Amino acid sequence: MRYSKLFGKTIKEAPKDASLISHKLLYQGGFIRESSAGRYYFLPLGLRVHQKIQKIVKEEMDKAGAQEIVTPVMHPKYLWQETNRTTSVGFELMSIKDRSEMEFVLGGTAEEMMVDLVRKFQLSYKDLPFNIYQFSTKFRDELRARGGLLRAREFMMKDAYSFHASEEDFKKEYENMKKTYIRIYERLGLKTLVVESDNGYIGGEYCHEFIVESQAGESKFLTTQDGSYAAHEDVAVFQVDDRNVDEEEKPLKEVEAVRGTTMEEGVKLHNKPLWQQIKDVLFVDERGRFILAIIRGDYDVNETKLLHLIKAYTLRLATEEEIRTILHSEPGFISPVRIKEDLEKDVQLVIVADKSLHSVKNAYGGANKKHRDLFNMNIGRDYQGDIEGDIALAKDGYLAKNGQPLLAKRGIEVGNIFQLGFHYSAKMTGALFTDATGEQKPYYMGCYGIGIGRTMQTIVEMHNDVKGIIWPDGISPFQVQLVGLNLDNESVRKQAEQVYEKLTQAGIEVLFDDRTSVGPGEKFADADLLGFPIRLVVSIKSNGQIELKKRKEKETELLNLEDLIGKINSIIL
Amino acid sequence: MRYSKLFGKTIKEAPKDASLISHKLLYQGGFIRESSAGRYYFLPLGLRVHQKIQKIVKEEMDKAGAQEIVTPVMHPKYLWQETNRTTSVGFELMSIKDRSEMEFVLGGTAEEMMVDLVRKFQLSYKDLPFNIYQFSTKFRDELRARGGLLRAREFMMKDAYSFHASEEDFKKEYENMKKTYIRIYERLGLKTLVVESDNGYIGGEYCHEFIVESQAGESKFLTTQDGSYAAHEDVAVFQVDDRNVDEEEKPLKEVEAVRGTTMEEGVKLHNKPLWQQIKDVLFVDERGRFILAIIRGDYDVNETKLLHLIKAYTLRLATEEEIRTILHSEPGFISPVRIKEDLEKDVQLVIVADKSLHSVKNAYGGANKKHRDLFNMNIGRDYQGDIEGDIALAKDGYLAKNGQPLLAKRGIEVGNIFQLGFHYSAKMTGALFTDATGEQKPYYMGCYGIGIGRTMQTIVEMHNDVKGIIWPDGISPFQVQLVGLNLDNESVRKQAEQVYEKLTQAGIEVLFDDRTSVGPGEKFADADLLGFPIRLVVSIKSNGQIELKKRKEKETELLNLEDLIGKINSIIL
Repeated sequence: MRYSKLFGKTIKEAPKDASLISHKLLYQGGFIRESSAGRYYFLPLGLRVHQKIQKIVKEEMDKAGAQEIVTPVMHPKYLWQETNRTTSVGFELMSIKDRSEMEFVLGGTAEEMMVDLVRKFQLSYKDLPFNIYQFSTKFRDELRARGGLLRAREFMMKDAYSFHASEEDFKKEYENMKKTYIRIYERLGLKTLVVESDNGYIGGEYCHEFIVESQAGESKFLTTQDGSYAAHEDVAVFQVDDRNVDEEEKPLKEVEAVRGTTMEEGVKLHNKPLWQQIKDVLFVDERGRFILAIIRGDYDVNETKLLHLIKAYTLRLATEEEIRTILHSEPGFISPVRIKEDLEKDVQLVIVADKSLHSVKNAYGGANKKHRDLFNMNIGRDYQGDIEGDIALAKDGYLAKNGQPLLAKRGIEVGNIFQLGFHYSAKMTGALFTDATGEQKPYYMGCYGIGIGRTMQTIVEMHNDVKGIIWPDGISPFQVQLVGLNLDNESVRKQAEQVYEKLTQAGIEVLFDDRTSVGPGEKFADADLLGFPIRLVVSIKSNGQIELKKRKEKETELLNLEDLIGKINSIIL
Repeated sequence: MRYSKLFGKTIKEAPKDASLISHKLLYQGGFIRESSAGRYYFLPLGLRVHQKIQKIVKEEMDKAGAQEIVTPVMHPKYLWQETNRTTSVGFELMSIKDRSEMEFVLGGTAEEMMVDLVRKFQLSYKDLPFNIYQFSTKFRDELRARGGLLRAREFMMKDAYSFHASEEDFKKEYENMKKTYIRIYERLGLKTLVVESDNGYIGGEYCHEFIVESQAGESKFLTTQDGSYAAHEDVAVFQVDDRNVDEEEKPLKEVEAVRGTTMEEGVKLHNKPLWQQIKDVLFVDERGRFILAIIRGDYDVNETKLLHLIKAYTLRLATEEEIRTILHSEPGFISPVRIKEDLEKDVQLVIVADKSLHSVKNAYGGANKKHRDLFNMNIGRDYQGDIEGDIALAKDGYLAKNGQPLLAKRGIEVGNIFQLGFHYSAKMTGALFTDATGEQKPYYMGCYGIGIGRTMQTIVEMHNDVKGIIWPDGISPFQVQLVGLNLDNESVRKQAEQVYEKLTQAGIEVLFDDRTSVGPGEKFADADLLGFPIRLVVSIKSNGQIELKKRKEKETELLNLEDLIGKINSIIL
């Protein structure tokens, strides 16, 4: 390809809202352009990278035994109603009607579509297992699209779905996919951590994210130094340290407490430790239920864990007015003790107690009245949760179950794998196979995603320097940038053309900067910005030879045309 | 690939609504499945074919100098408003709002998106010309989806858009694309005719369809025996033969005419030829204007030509009530003579006269009153069109401009190329380049489409026999179907596995029918249905050798394993 003919050249300016280096570089290099917020054009250079990533993903998926198919982009809405996902993910889904008023959904994932396809076939245990995947455009109506391709509203995703006769069989595929993903990211030049994570609106019981550690990422996770434990903040667990559990339980006592509404003011007024206080957070879920989350005072509530325990989709904080008029309590003075005694019949209040409350005796906190506190609250004796469990947010420095301290990190989620179990096949009528005894049984399922555009930008985020991108060999849009200088000189022009032709014939991907209106400085800067593994220069100075420089290194080397191809192949192999 | 593991096997039944053999075969062979009407899943076998077609299209587009990019699927609606296409194609477009109430369109083509991309760059004449294309999902909210992939509501299209400094430069690219398309269809095993056609809602002044002649198609076109002229029925022109042009003009005369409302009844009552009658057809356009199309009695009105002349988008026939109460005329007795005299001021009536009316003198027809006819109507003297032009429908047997008789044919449109001129660049602000003198000028454009799914099904429609599909070598999902019989026999099983392994290692695409639960008859029938170029059989009977049969031929041949790869390569090269 001649650079003079290339659509989408380099540019000095970056978009005003681009804060990430990867976003800037992809824009400046002429890889992408934004259409509307979060929806991108891929220009010729950008699409080449995107397709190379896609090819690597496809090769590894095929090698792993998965089979590529494709589903329509418009999913019949009734399928999403079969699994109740129009409610559970409603706010992120976009609906559309066709001329006959049939409703469709623009899918963010395709579980229903895949199950609907599979149930069109009468399959038996002999046809199992299988793993079908597609590359297709996905839609997420994100509240805020930002960071370029890192959080786009429209993007290509590789999504795979496996169907099994048993959990045991599924687990083999889950491991197979885990290994496949590790190989894929290795080939893409990305170091990933496999992190336990939350299944969000996908459903199922457990899942893992593949995270590239980076401050540019939105995924917060915790890991031990040796990597033996890694979990997303949403699901991370830790050891609760016992505090005064050997202390004798003292009688409950109400005291005056002229203080403000924060935890710190309680500590100050009573001169007792924060951990001995009870933290009460009152939420309202999407069904209008009040949820009182209570936890040891030095811990914070993890809303994701809380949502799972109460089987709800969304939470908001209760207002001061709701606390006073409906719960007959007082902001900053809420207590689980006797809070249910005055409730009207139609008010639903669920108390969720974190298990950390067992690690403290004689706790103090509000008394459901202004300027009144309780001392010596003890779980089991004075109050208890309707639900008890782990709703605590893990933090840097807490101890993992294995005793090692947790380290808090940030990263970019580039892929994920999910156990789905019977989550979809049980809800969707007829998603059944015939087992060896002739009985009809639901499929046991898993699903596996990789966002191609996000992976592409992550690679740039991890592989760059002050001058520009440094593409890993396998996905660079071209392998070689051939810079022609002094092209007004007939013999240099001829030599450059000859090099271009010879390399191209040898199957090497060359971008030939054949511009005559641009000086050497700009050409070198462009080559560095675009970031292909090898830069060649032909000029008067190179005197019939060709100067070779690797993007990663500073040294240059002069070569004869005869030796060039061998040298290039030795570098990019 | 082992057939036992393949997702999507053959099936005896075909969908009830499948009338085309190609639709049936793609279903029965396990290539596609319908999701909702007109929206299809591509199963592993089908996707392989789809991808191979796509690859050929890409190779030829790249060879022709075009550059692949990709645009978002969701097009901001304001872009379509810039070009007024939300009105002109409104009924086929689907709109969708995101959470911020921004409106989008699911595109059927991408002219606006491409122009919007290009105007983000400050380009000069030096950057021109270029041709950018994409493969992406297109949406057409068809009234009736039918015929499988032939008229789908969602499908992958290769759409290319070229940008030029001048019409002259564009014309070179138009020819370049024409040649490229011819090469593409040759490689795909399709014989296409390049047919002048209507630009529909795309705009521009001229365009051509690539049509495969087939009764399964919906495109009606006319061509001369030698192929020197070929045009879609919508635009085809022909020689109007003069009738009684030398006759003297007689005085206009109103006569009693107790007859029905058809043309034939006029002929019978007055005993005059059909061609001497005037045919009057009254339409209403989308703006509420009445359009009176008048034409020589033996010709029919071509609504597409009519729409272009009056610059409207849709037509419906006027009702009898409208004819009587608004136009003060009479159904079956409409006449252009004096019809405008009684109209109320707010009634708009446009008379469009076909030029064929100059080929007849002393014509007869209605008198705008029940049971009254006029004799000796002469254009220019007694009536005239507000617009005069060609609104005649060409038919089988009419003479082309070159004197040869026209043949009416049907076919499937598999691709098209359009001159767009300034149609988009003039309407969209800032779609300008800087010319050599520093002046800002609009781009001169063209666009070029190929429907991948429709092309795939057309290939099946043209390449099949009673037993199934006969894929052309280059796009067959696999090159070889290896049928293993007597696989319970240890040595046969071993041999079959060895053949499978050796061929696969040699880079030959093999589908190995390794099923043990299925007899030879069914395996052979499946191989014929799937239609790969070569069938191999390993069985007890083949006695250590391998039986080879081409799908297109009946003869079989026994080969040793050593000779097999050479033989296969000699066939499929």
